[in-house]
Amino acid sequence: METVNTTDRLRQLRALMKQHKVDIYIVPSEDAHSSEYIAPTDARREFISGFSGSAGTAVITHDKAALATDGRYFNQASKQLDNNWELLKQGLQDVPTWQEWAVDQAAPGDGKEGKVVGVDPTTIAAPDGRKLGDKIKKKGGKELVGVAENLVDQVWDKQKPARPNEPVKVLGQEHAGKKYQDKIEDLRKELDKKKAAGFVVSMLDEIAWLFNLRGNDIPYNPVFFSYAVVTPTTTILYIDESKFEGNVKAHLMGINIRPYDAIFSDIRTMSKDEPSANGTSNSASTPKRKYLISTRASWALSQALGGDEKVDEVRSPIGDAKAIKNSTELEGMRQCHIRDGAALIEFFAWLEDELINKHSKLDEVQAADKLEQIRSNHDKFVGLSFDTISSTGANAAVIHYKPEPGNCSTIDPAKVYLCDSGAQFLDGTTDTTRTLHFGEPTAMEREAYTLVLKGHIALELAVFPKGTSGFALDTLARQYLWSNGLEYRHGTGHGVGSYLNVHEGPIGIGTRIQYSEVPLSVGNVISNEPGYYEDGNFGIRIENIIMVKEIETKHKFGDKPYLGFEHVTMVPMCRKLIDVEMLERRERQWLNAYHSEVLEKTKRFFKEDQRSMGWLERECARY
Amino acid sequence: METVNTTDRLRQLRALMKQHKVDIYIVPSEDAHSSEYIAPTDARREFISGFSGSAGTAVITHDKAALATDGRYFNQASKQLDNNWELLKQGLQDVPTWQEWAVDQAAPGDGKEGKVVGVDPTTIAAPDGRKLGDKIKKKGGKELVGVAENLVDQVWDKQKPARPNEPVKVLGQEHAGKKYQDKIEDLRKELDKKKAAGFVVSMLDEIAWLFNLRGNDIPYNPVFFSYAVVTPTTTILYIDESKFEGNVKAHLMGINIRPYDAIFSDIRTMSKDEPSANGTSNSASTPKRKYLISTRASWALSQALGGDEKVDEVRSPIGDAKAIKNSTELEGMRQCHIRDGAALIEFFAWLEDELINKHSKLDEVQAADKLEQIRSNHDKFVGLSFDTISSTGANAAVIHYKPEPGNCSTIDPAKVYLCDSGAQFLDGTTDTTRTLHFGEPTAMEREAYTLVLKGHIALELAVFPKGTSGFALDTLARQYLWSNGLEYRHGTGHGVGSYLNVHEGPIGIGTRIQYSEVPLSVGNVISNEPGYYEDGNFGIRIENIIMVKEIETKHKFGDKPYLGFEHVTMVPMCRKLIDVEMLERRERQWLNAYHSEVLEKTKRFFKEDQRSMGWLERECARY
Repeated sequence: METVNTTDRLRQLRALMKQHKVDIYIVPSEDAHSSEYIAPTDARREFISGFSGSAGTAVITHDKAALATDGRYFNQASKQLDNNWELLKQGLQDVPTWQEWAVDQAAPGDGKEGKVVGVDPTTIAAPDGRKLGDKIKKKGGKELVGVAENLVDQVWDKQKPARPNEPVKVLGQEHAGKKYQDKIEDLRKELDKKKAAGFVVSMLDEIAWLFNLRGNDIPYNPVFFSYAVVTPTTTILYIDESKFEGNVKAHLMGINIRPYDAIFSDIRTMSKDEPSANGTSNSASTPKRKYLISTRASWALSQALGGDEKVDEVRSPIGDAKAIKNSTELEGMRQCHIRDGAALIEFFAWLEDELINKHSKLDEVQAADKLEQIRSNHDKFVGLSFDTISSTGANAAVIHYKPEPGNCSTIDPAKVYLCDSGAQFLDGTTDTTRTLHFGEPTAMEREAYTLVLKGHIALELAVFPKGTSGFALDTLARQYLWSNGLEYRHGTGHGVGSYLNVHEGPIGIGTRIQYSEVPLSVGNVISNEPGYYEDGNFGIRIENIIMVKEIETKHKFGDKPYLGFEHVTMVPMCRKLIDVEMLERRERQWLNAYHSEVLEKTKRFFKEDQRSMGWLERECARY
Repeated sequence: METVNTTDRLRQLRALMKQHKVDIYIVPSEDAHSSEYIAPTDARREFISGFSGSAGTAVITHDKAALATDGRYFNQASKQLDNNWELLKQGLQDVPTWQEWAVDQAAPGDGKEGKVVGVDPTTIAAPDGRKLGDKIKKKGGKELVGVAENLVDQVWDKQKPARPNEPVKVLGQEHAGKKYQDKIEDLRKELDKKKAAGFVVSMLDEIAWLFNLRGNDIPYNPVFFSYAVVTPTTTILYIDESKFEGNVKAHLMGINIRPYDAIFSDIRTMSKDEPSANGTSNSASTPKRKYLISTRASWALSQALGGDEKVDEVRSPIGDAKAIKNSTELEGMRQCHIRDGAALIEFFAWLEDELINKHSKLDEVQAADKLEQIRSNHDKFVGLSFDTISSTGANAAVIHYKPEPGNCSTIDPAKVYLCDSGAQFLDGTTDTTRTLHFGEPTAMEREAYTLVLKGHIALELAVFPKGTSGFALDTLARQYLWSNGLEYRHGTGHGVGSYLNVHEGPIGIGTRIQYSEVPLSVGNVISNEPGYYEDGNFGIRIENIIMVKEIETKHKFGDKPYLGFEHVTMVPMCRKLIDVEMLERRERQWLNAYHSEVLEKTKRFFKEDQRSMGWLERECARY
């Protein structure tokens, strides 16, 4: 993690700002699709600031530059930023948010004129842009303007990596489970209900899901750069056709294919042709219809469609549909998690053997690489679903730890080892965390592990009426930690894609208020990952993927279905870290049943692998 | 419950509507202070429609009239409404809300001109008025206008009861625990933080709390008709001075007293004198300040202050402060609940004796009257805190059941008896529900009671970090019912006033999203009342009042305090209805400890009352 000299880059950027009459320029982390992970070509904030973390925003004035990021990255940012930059530690008291900082810069006060703030409108979500613009004006700044050409790209110029153009393939019916034509028909029913002119699809995973296509343009996410527009009568996919591989062209028969870059001019025309939603059409009988975009669609899309008058921002109906997996996808999830579990079992058995019997010195990256190699031998493996968190001792307390080759710790067999990893398979996406100990855990480590396990079990055993959200269930996972004065500072569960992004909305289990807006439904796939982290000491996390299903209850009040969970992750819990005395009867029953199931479903992989089989049988022994 | 002939009233109202150029007139339930309970003089919706339920809105056009109410009142409304009225059953599918109905009436379509909707602006909250006005315009209606004179009052005229003018008394420091001058100083600090010109106080319980005064203008609520204005330098109380009793005048030394009706003209002037919040003042150096009103303040108040430009609607800082009881109030709550518990114990022992030993025929109202009489013998008793719910068998399944004299059921000793009641004492407000059985409960009744009890105990034993809301805890009370396919359709807890309204915000435990916005804090007093209701058969509810306190936990992650609850209600649970086999160890421990405490704290009341003492000892025996 080296400091980057940004003096020259900033000088060039400021010259361009002058040219475009912009006093303050904002560089968000996001690409044009609000992607959580981005391709190198979209890493503009990293290029201009030198800070390479996954989250952060740069704000540049003619004489200052600020980089805002959160607690995960305070250390890294202070190392990577040079003297040109001020670090805004988000979440600390009395530190302004980047929005507040930008608004302050835009309002010089003392009777001076307000300043112009610029941003590439493809890199900021429409509601965020609108809110920021309102604040700037309210506090005495001039305005927020969308600058169509990205100014950082112009500085970057020749050094800038090209936009990826990886192949796009058809996801067969045996994995998708539903024809894309039927998905589009379902979407049209939603458009009809909402009396909408059409839906402009901007999220890359939504497009991949909608058309049953997968790509490889963004690390870990099998998506491809594209937009789509679905109206009651037409479907247009905006994509570079040179990406098509195999039978994609035939698969998309009847779909209008247009170049990726054509989206903005196309929707500008489309929207003009649509009679205004506010009744300024020529004929009174023409229906008043708006285009729908997702609340995460860019300001640029909203503007191209004609702004508020012409656009409704909604929680994406595709996101909602995608979160409810069909039976093929659910079965794929079960199957890929058995293979993935077998890989983890083989890896943990190998790691224990290396550390304890062979006294090997292994660092965190070497372990992660071994795990990837084992995983890659399994059927239908495509790649990892995110950077493996392979962490020893105190590193396990860093919730988003990412070991760097040559700059990571050697695994200490006398400390906990936390491994959070997952893969993309053709039949599903996995995400599993296990915390292990190869020596003698401390009393506190066992206590914390067992409290986390109790919360994990309580959430999985929860039964709840249809209509209940993940917000309402979150406390179940935390209750035992809380009773002992312990807590974890992250959510309990995130939606998981089906051979798609490992994090997907709109569902979640946690204290974020948006999780209260979407009830959990049969077919949802979500993680269950409580934890506990002691800074500088150790970290615990136990993560299974669980799927929402209907539960047969003894009674049935109000003829409403009652729902619960089915686990698909197949990896034993850590015997050494469980204090079985702290478990109640139903928890012990759960644990025994889980371990029998794991053993039953994965043992076929170890017929000729005594090390793994021995480890598995030992860890799965009955309590 | 008789049908009221409203033909003549409606004819007169419609004539007045014509005079005021109003096509559609809305009559809400609320008084000018958004009170949950209202005085007879404010029962305008009841007068015009004939429907006497606590919730409902009437909408009258020149040829139609609609009354909207919720599921609790479908039966009652259909009996009370005459042929002039259409009943809008709120919550049923395909039934419009009263807002939708009014908006539809205002937008005739077919090129016809939109219509004018009128409402007395004192009877609708400002945000509700604004939302309704926007919808009317958006859908093609003309506009929503505030009609200053209440048109129903003009029809009602001489028959209309006078506004109550009950005495107002000082609540002594020994009960209030904090001088009102200090409360006003605290409020000024909030005004200062928010750079506000002042706070216009509209909620009656907030005024009573702020000035340490109590009145009797509204049934069950010891409040008095008034407004108040607090600015950084002045305090004005708008009240009819003829209400003052004893030392009120001296108590209020230094407070500017003005007539109740003077509020609107006063704030109109005040607001004009305040430089505009949007900088249209003459001098640039004058601070830009707005007046604060509660989000439940009336549209009339907001208008008088000059509307959006001059007003910020906020969650009331007084409501927030009031919800955090001081140590005197907390101790008062403990003490009044011991006396109130003794009254309930005496009542239940009497009732059992009457029904079982004396085979008396008692109806629900007779039982409630006896309970009131017993309560009234206790120290510091002022009155009831709400209509007693005294209900036998299937009536117990009606969540808001109110037995009517001469028209209620005889208590059946072979069925459950549910009693939800409370009182106002000088030192606090009580609210207790117990469900009893005097004969042989069915298996289902015992199972349901025990599941409700398990949830009640789980909520009380909850430990949670500071910052946790009642929304996050609600599931703890429901989890055991849910696991068995059972559920209750009401909240789990409401804030309770200190010798004030039995329902008070802003805290609550339940699924309403606003409960997620306010964390529970040390000093909050709240009910814990899970239940289960089987239509036409039986109902169960177990309600204690609990207070938030800091808990010493084994560990303490993040140096954040961990909070939990202390119960103050002192009445045994029903032995016959508990299936002790369904209880876990910690639940049995809780029950035994609770019963010992109830016995210890209430037995002094029964030294010469063998019946009560015998009943108490039997119910409190150890498991």
